[in-house]
Amino acid sequence: MKELDKIFARIVQRVNINLREIDFDVNPFAVELIPPDQMSKFYAFYGITPDHPLDLHFQHSALAGSYFLGKCQVRNSLLYKSDIRGDELKRKGDTVTFKRFSITLTNDEMIDIRNSALVKTLVHNYSHDPETPEVFFITDTLAMDYANIHGSPTDGSFLGPFATVDLTTVRDSVIGAYSYIQAGEISHLHIEPGTIWVNSPGNFNFYYRHPPEQLEHYISLSPDKVPWGLLIDFIEERKVEFQRVFDVVNLKEIGSVPESAKVDRYAVVLPNIKIGENVLVSQRAYLKNSSLGRGANAQENCFIINSTLEGFNVTAHGAKIIEARLGRKVFVGFNSFLNGNTEQMLTIGEGCVIMPHTIIDIKKPLEIPADHLVWGLIRNEADLALNSLPKTTLSAVDSSLTQGRMHFEGKGGLFVKALSDRIDHILEVNGAFFANGENDGHAQRNQKLSLNTIQPFQFGPMQGMYPTITIRP
Amino acid sequence: MKELDKIFARIVQRVNINLREIDFDVNPFAVELIPPDQMSKFYAFYGITPDHPLDLHFQHSALAGSYFLGKCQVRNSLLYKSDIRGDELKRKGDTVTFKRFSITLTNDEMIDIRNSALVKTLVHNYSHDPETPEVFFITDTLAMDYANIHGSPTDGSFLGPFATVDLTTVRDSVIGAYSYIQAGEISHLHIEPGTIWVNSPGNFNFYYRHPPEQLEHYISLSPDKVPWGLLIDFIEERKVEFQRVFDVVNLKEIGSVPESAKVDRYAVVLPNIKIGENVLVSQRAYLKNSSLGRGANAQENCFIINSTLEGFNVTAHGAKIIEARLGRKVFVGFNSFLNGNTEQMLTIGEGCVIMPHTIIDIKKPLEIPADHLVWGLIRNEADLALNSLPKTTLSAVDSSLTQGRMHFEGKGGLFVKALSDRIDHILEVNGAFFANGENDGHAQRNQKLSLNTIQPFQFGPMQGMYPTITIRP
Repeated sequence: MKELDKIFARIVQRVNINLREIDFDVNPFAVELIPPDQMSKFYAFYGITPDHPLDLHFQHSALAGSYFLGKCQVRNSLLYKSDIRGDELKRKGDTVTFKRFSITLTNDEMIDIRNSALVKTLVHNYSHDPETPEVFFITDTLAMDYANIHGSPTDGSFLGPFATVDLTTVRDSVIGAYSYIQAGEISHLHIEPGTIWVNSPGNFNFYYRHPPEQLEHYISLSPDKVPWGLLIDFIEERKVEFQRVFDVVNLKEIGSVPESAKVDRYAVVLPNIKIGENVLVSQRAYLKNSSLGRGANAQENCFIINSTLEGFNVTAHGAKIIEARLGRKVFVGFNSFLNGNTEQMLTIGEGCVIMPHTIIDIKKPLEIPADHLVWGLIRNEADLALNSLPKTTLSAVDSSLTQGRMHFEGKGGLFVKALSDRIDHILEVNGAFFANGENDGHAQRNQKLSLNTIQPFQFGPMQGMYPTITIRP
Repeated sequence: MKELDKIFARIVQRVNINLREIDFDVNPFAVELIPPDQMSKFYAFYGITPDHPLDLHFQHSALAGSYFLGKCQVRNSLLYKSDIRGDELKRKGDTVTFKRFSITLTNDEMIDIRNSALVKTLVHNYSHDPETPEVFFITDTLAMDYANIHGSPTDGSFLGPFATVDLTTVRDSVIGAYSYIQAGEISHLHIEPGTIWVNSPGNFNFYYRHPPEQLEHYISLSPDKVPWGLLIDFIEERKVEFQRVFDVVNLKEIGSVPESAKVDRYAVVLPNIKIGENVLVSQRAYLKNSSLGRGANAQENCFIINSTLEGFNVTAHGAKIIEARLGRKVFVGFNSFLNGNTEQMLTIGEGCVIMPHTIIDIKKPLEIPADHLVWGLIRNEADLALNSLPKTTLSAVDSSLTQGRMHFEGKGGLFVKALSDRIDHILEVNGAFFANGENDGHAQRNQKLSLNTIQPFQFGPMQGMYPTITIRP
């Protein structure tokens, strides 16, 4: 048995031990998850910038084509083309405030991945857990294609494809396919597929679940099968265009990118792209025939096709925008799928917030008025009426509101404020407000990003595994 | 001041401190030696094979496009496209015998480079010093273009361009351009350019010095100038063909290489090359319109152009063979320059030994009879008569012999035997005698060599320096 198979069997067992109380067996989902012969085909790479500390340690792990930035250690784990970003980790001396606690860090924060298998998973942001401010851990966890572990220390858990955990500490839990959880701390929960849950205890609680029989069309997962559905097909069809950017050592620079903007070297940029000032296009973003106005950003794994984004737009990780016009400051949350088409344009008014994991898939033109909150599955005008609200209406909610499959409890004003504060913060850290040499963010700082590669063993029982590699300044 | 400049200044100072007793200042030779803007342009790479332990540690150093194999640490040093091979290092448990001592190694041997600047230098073999069997050290040393540190721990020394130290511990010494020293242990010596000196105290002592005014035509070095001469020009003219092999991620395999032979992926192989069984072509070898018969090898930095090598030929590191026919088992030593031309073919008979650093540069055809020892500078029949001897004649020498500029003392038989034992050993370790799955060597084992890359900082004060990198199994 090759080392790669041994380590995978060990990870699966560890996840199952953690999930024994909720009686979940990850074994059937592990089938074909890590393609052993693919694991030695790719090179992993890491970014170096003058702006953040470098500290990488890889031990007894396979990394395939994964990407690393900042401080990270990976031990006894398998990563298959995952994207592990450490550029927003906290630093030694930083003080974080959590309710009545003020915590000063004695070390730089580090991402610590152990005994885990992550497939095309994005790991980003920093540990929002006040219990472990210096360690963003991911242990005994199995995460499937395009899962998103965002500021969420995770232990003993299983994440289905396109599942997102956001600013949440997750222990011994199962997060179903295409579920989005932002809930501070969860433990021993089995979250059904297509659940959108934003909970700030004492403040607000937002809950929606995609209709299972309709969600299946977009993303499905069954034991003993690889995930399937429209979202998987959509990505697979565009895979070949990513090939090119990884095969060539020195890629031609894309013309006419303003000096204040940054288009990553590992982004796919197809013809007819207009990039405004302060725009950030992250690696593995896919852009085709679209315009990104001043201060817009296109985050990892997003797709923007035949669309116009007016400016200060956030296209979050994994979001897909096809044949759409987005006004200024429209926010499109993680893994949302906005699927217009040439004849049936989708128009979204200024200041709208498209909740994470929203699907808009239209057969007729659809226009969403400005300053609305939008969620769930929307296929027509009637769905839109049920799955959206003016932000002002929501702000006025004082105790609870139920509309269609959505349930809200708590203070609407606090929820809307939390959303808009966060959007402003995202724009700020990405450098959207850069002017006169001030307010620089990722778009400007990543100008000086260089990418280095590391490679696995090519032969013998260790094939596909990486040597023990330590990289420090 | 950038880190790269600081570290270089520090190295130069340390070498000068070591060389104070022989009153030598390396400063004038350090000018333009390390081109700072080139140091961030290249990637370094290391080989992994299942056959030898991996242990690399790089700290506070610039490595440019250097190559590493096996166990090696580099600290506070600058390497510019050097070739550091650790595949012949001794292993834990090995026993080496040195006169009346039998020494068993308690650790794997390691190459340890500290406070040194090596430019296009080849480091190879293992420490032949019984005082440090587990460490092949290179400290406080500056070595210039195409110097060759072969099995020679070196401390506080300066090596001119094309200087070779072979199986010799070198302390506080200056080795002139194109000098070859094999002398067990030397200290506080200033070796003039073009010296060929093979000394085994109590057994034999071979000494020749190239006529300085004629050597100048081939290689010259003066304070405040970069080295020049025909040898430098010869390499510079062929530089562009090396470019291609480093620019492309996946190079096409060369057709019709027998399974028992190995042509390195970083060798330059131009049209009309015939490769026999058990042939080894090392990285940075350059082959053009030539035939290498069974068991021949073409070592690092060698050039073989328009030539036929019948088989079991050794073309040692840096040797150049142009327009020549070599019989079976002709040995061509380090940095030899055999320059025939289309009209004036050079023919070398079976079993000849061309001593290291021999120059044969002919205007008329020249034929060297079989089983001769050949040395020095040869431009015609008269030079050949002066600078060669049948091996049998030399074997019969019992006390001393002077012929032209060559002086020999000791037992000729021991000298000839030492040479032919070594040639057999070289053929053996390179896999020339492989048959029926037995007697495998580098040619067969390197089949499973994979090459990985590491990269320097691209920006800021550390530009051109490498991060601290540790790579272990």
